[in-house]
Amino acid sequence: MGTAYLDHASTTPMLPEAIEAMTAQLRQVGNPSSLHAAGRRARRVVEESRETIACALGARPSEVVFTAGGTEADNLAVKGLFWARRRPRVLLSAVEHHAVLDPAHWLADHHGAVVELLEVDDRGRVHPETLRAAIERDPGDVALVSVMWANNEVGTVQPVRVLAAIAHEHGIPFHTDAVQAVGQLPVSFAESGVDAMTVSGHKVGGPIGVGALLLARGVDPVPVLHGGGQERDIRSGTLDAPAIAGFAAAVEAAVKHQDATAERLTALRDDLIERVRRVVPDVILNGDPDNRLPGNAHFSFPGCEGDALLMLLDAKGVECSTGSACSAGVAQPSHVLLAMGQDGARARGSLRFSFGHTSTEEDVDRVADVIPHVVERARRAGLT
Amino acid sequence: MGTAYLDHASTTPMLPEAIEAMTAQLRQVGNPSSLHAAGRRARRVVEESRETIACALGARPSEVVFTAGGTEADNLAVKGLFWARRRPRVLLSAVEHHAVLDPAHWLADHHGAVVELLEVDDRGRVHPETLRAAIERDPGDVALVSVMWANNEVGTVQPVRVLAAIAHEHGIPFHTDAVQAVGQLPVSFAESGVDAMTVSGHKVGGPIGVGALLLARGVDPVPVLHGGGQERDIRSGTLDAPAIAGFAAAVEAAVKHQDATAERLTALRDDLIERVRRVVPDVILNGDPDNRLPGNAHFSFPGCEGDALLMLLDAKGVECSTGSACSAGVAQPSHVLLAMGQDGARARGSLRFSFGHTSTEEDVDRVADVIPHVVERARRAGLT
Repeated sequence: MGTAYLDHASTTPMLPEAIEAMTAQLRQVGNPSSLHAAGRRARRVVEESRETIACALGARPSEVVFTAGGTEADNLAVKGLFWARRRPRVLLSAVEHHAVLDPAHWLADHHGAVVELLEVDDRGRVHPETLRAAIERDPGDVALVSVMWANNEVGTVQPVRVLAAIAHEHGIPFHTDAVQAVGQLPVSFAESGVDAMTVSGHKVGGPIGVGALLLARGVDPVPVLHGGGQERDIRSGTLDAPAIAGFAAAVEAAVKHQDATAERLTALRDDLIERVRRVVPDVILNGDPDNRLPGNAHFSFPGCEGDALLMLLDAKGVECSTGSACSAGVAQPSHVLLAMGQDGARARGSLRFSFGHTSTEEDVDRVADVIPHVVERARRAGLT
Repeated sequence: MGTAYLDHASTTPMLPEAIEAMTAQLRQVGNPSSLHAAGRRARRVVEESRETIACALGARPSEVVFTAGGTEADNLAVKGLFWARRRPRVLLSAVEHHAVLDPAHWLADHHGAVVELLEVDDRGRVHPETLRAAIERDPGDVALVSVMWANNEVGTVQPVRVLAAIAHEHGIPFHTDAVQAVGQLPVSFAESGVDAMTVSGHKVGGPIGVGALLLARGVDPVPVLHGGGQERDIRSGTLDAPAIAGFAAAVEAAVKHQDATAERLTALRDDLIERVRRVVPDVILNGDPDNRLPGNAHFSFPGCEGDALLMLLDAKGVECSTGSACSAGVAQPSHVLLAMGQDGARARGSLRFSFGHTSTEEDVDRVADVIPHVVERARRAGLT
């Protein structure tokens, strides 16, 4: 009896083609910045990977800046554009990932930034008029706007194209964290109109430790990592040809199969929602029923603690996530759910199931089988 | 006929045990921050790797902060300690890697730092009295001192322990970039007395894209990457269990065999030096004959351009490096050689051969065979 891994939004298994592309490179030597044949060979791997990723994501190769992952790309976008633009206001949705929120709050604490969180509705969506009103309070003072493509916890998809257009009316650069979107939704950098977009390797079936910030021409963030001057001086550090090759193979495969993946994951996800509702009638589905990542199902189980549910499910071979940040064993209610207007109790009783390329109907069966008992036990634990 | 890869200081092939440890993890799934079984398994890989690296380098596991590589670790040390200490002066040796120099210069340009470069002698060494004098001009104003363990270009080993002790007389934290030293020299974090030490994966036979900053207890740099709060909030970003496992296997093997490696590389290197001198009598050996990395031989060839030598050698199957940063095809003389008092012509005519675990006597034969002809052609090219 294996486990049902339903935590693909945290990290998803590497695709076989990504493992193959990467391991082939691990056996080669060459620093892509070296001028000799070994270096030029490694450089070709990097540049071909750059072209593959650009092509899959509707960008130009020159718009792809490789980083060590989504967190670094988000830091580069937020800090880099803030420092480049020299204006105080940083407008973020209230449901951003910590890799966007925390750099902004740090800039506020130490570098004079004024962070303004854009309200979301009870489905987690930013309304275009909210952004417009925030900008128009003082358009000349806005350094950047950052609103994610799709939320990592509740799966809500944002109207990124509309929001970016509003920012552009005032010449303000728009960043989006598309880490959760690539491979599940159609993502075109050019068509979205955004100026900067974060992508991560290990969320699309590539390796951990690699990602990219896509940057439209003329958008030049101040670097976060200084040194050897790689990536047009925007991101220093030895180019990781093996990881980049694996990343490219994964992005290519994920985007190629995106339609079929979306259909398959949506079916699995909807089946899970229906079956959980049937056996736990008072369960609440969080997020947006209309604008939702195909692989995301996010529930609140009244009277339960999410951590208790997670551990009980884990013992039954179901691996999922609370979607709430845990530090030192103290469960904090999710800032995403609180921003959506939920109270602390409902937020703490939540659980995220996220599907991916290895997910099957058997995973859904497993959850449906064990969830009534698990919820009952968690409720009893909550009462004591 | 294969090639003679003599550019191990740029990047060295992965050790078989590192490839094995890493590829085994690429086939597993699990975010080390996840609470379920898959996450806990990945977390165990990270923590066992942390222990391995700490043990090999004379540190405590809690002193190891994983990063995406040497550049990021250097940025974290320099910027992080500057921001944490809130004092203006940053003292660096004039021969630091760009991953130390460039963050410091950026802090000077935009964040009020005052960068002071410590002079080196013609062998590339910082004299303890140079550091003492610099500190004592205003000890209360110094944020940090950073002097590398061994230089990446000319291989000069610095008296790090003595220098760190001088900084400590005034309570100033001392950082060292030990990227080139690990595996070639005995390196103990505890015995060195330094407060922060940079290590890189791909310079010791591990993967690119991973490294560490070792931090003594109580040394708390401000983060450079904010987000999920990994690594005690000092470095956010999903922990890269596969790369970390490969890194640990490489560090363990490199340190275990360091004595034998040093002896073997020293013999190869000395043989190369002797044979090059025999066939190119006016060649100049740069660096410190007494305090030198075992795998480093760095020459100036009078009347030659380093780039021409590099390309001619490459055509003959010898891969090495100029040790000078090239940008857009324009050769800049090395800041290291200029700091050692060399003129631009001598600096531009230099070449680094660096040995590593795959180096053999045949590599030396190859260089000795082709170098007279290559130097002759480069000289002719230089005259036209």
